[in-house]
Amino acid sequence: MTTAKNEHIVSSYEEELTLLAQMISEMGGMVEAAVTDATQALLKLDHPLAQATIARDKMIDEMQRRIDEKAVSMIARRQPMAADLRMIITSIHVANDLERVGDMAKQVSRRSLQIEGLSLAPKFYNGVKHMTTLILHQLQAALDAYAERNSAAAVAVCNSDDEIDALHTSLFRELLTYMMEDPRNITQCTHLLFCAKSLERVGDHATNIAEAAYYLDTGKHLSSAVEDLHRTQVKV
Amino acid sequence: MTTAKNEHIVSSYEEELTLLAQMISEMGGMVEAAVTDATQALLKLDHPLAQATIARDKMIDEMQRRIDEKAVSMIARRQPMAADLRMIITSIHVANDLERVGDMAKQVSRRSLQIEGLSLAPKFYNGVKHMTTLILHQLQAALDAYAERNSAAAVAVCNSDDEIDALHTSLFRELLTYMMEDPRNITQCTHLLFCAKSLERVGDHATNIAEAAYYLDTGKHLSSAVEDLHRTQVKV
Repeated sequence: MTTAKNEHIVSSYEEELTLLAQMISEMGGMVEAAVTDATQALLKLDHPLAQATIARDKMIDEMQRRIDEKAVSMIARRQPMAADLRMIITSIHVANDLERVGDMAKQVSRRSLQIEGLSLAPKFYNGVKHMTTLILHQLQAALDAYAERNSAAAVAVCNSDDEIDALHTSLFRELLTYMMEDPRNITQCTHLLFCAKSLERVGDHATNIAEAAYYLDTGKHLSSAVEDLHRTQVKV
Repeated sequence: MTTAKNEHIVSSYEEELTLLAQMISEMGGMVEAAVTDATQALLKLDHPLAQATIARDKMIDEMQRRIDEKAVSMIARRQPMAADLRMIITSIHVANDLERVGDMAKQVSRRSLQIEGLSLAPKFYNGVKHMTTLILHQLQAALDAYAERNSAAAVAVCNSDDEIDALHTSLFRELLTYMMEDPRNITQCTHLLFCAKSLERVGDHATNIAEAAYYLDTGKHLSSAVEDLHRTQVKV
């Protein structure tokens, strides 16, 4: 085997690793757009936008499948060791989390179709609106931490998940109050409760992505102690 | 390298593949027990059982981590090809689904702690009880199809997910009716709505596991057409 051929193989392998990272980044962008559109569709009761967001979820699922296949094919052909293998396997996990965030966007879009036509006072949406802003920031920060392999940024993402959980709890209680005030609010507010839950789950997936970033940067899992803090508290 | 040594390596590799399958099977058993206990804790408002189920979720998470590490270590050391690689990568996905089913059990357990103390008529639980029976059957059938690499059984599991979704939709409407009848039912019924949703998600994960079984048996993904049928219908 010539040196030239060796170099070609190495270069091509590195190109493949870069391509895999780019695919994750691209999928991250698709998913961020889906969450943005789903929440816009909910807040503005924009029927066509909700339909379009639901339809686009297939592309996100397809992207996950492509990342999976790329990762498996790289492992099979390249037989990567240590850090590269860790990166490839982590890609599979992150693509899985992103696919589930895409599902959450689809679910919020479906709910918005069901809410449409029902009259809902703007005040009902305030909490969801605030939560949406936080969630989108959280997701973007997690994807940035992952792209940059930045463990400090990853820890910051994990820490701010508490804020989202607290907001979700307060929103849950607020919506229950509206339901108790007037039974005519029950159906709509129940849909909003589930939307809020979906958004809170997006925050959980962002935390998973941040944990993956931490793992890639440090080779260590975020300690059980930290997970305890962020995962096992009682959520509504 | 002697033949004896070759045989030893092959045998040890096969032992490792068997061990990985056993770990998935063991994790499946842990998760089935968690769902059983969580739903019992809910239906009987059994506080200590709920607490124990929540505490045991850490063991399920730990099992997923062990399966992940085993799979990655096998890929790194054994450099498996084709069918073996497919089986190993699929183990990572199935362990991920099982971990999420464990999370659902934990969530149902937490809800049951919140419902406790609130007076709830037995009729409220009938739908959840029926759904629990179906879900446990579905999860067990999916795990069996996976253990036996039985694509026909896997397709049957995917087909019966429709029944669970239909039951969930009818339960959702029933609970909304109770809430509208009497505002005092709102808080409890909301918790039950989320429990029903968690159970419905267990069904979705069972479908994923069945799809993995199909893939292992046939080398093909269940067609997009089938996925369309089971995934993109509007769910409440």
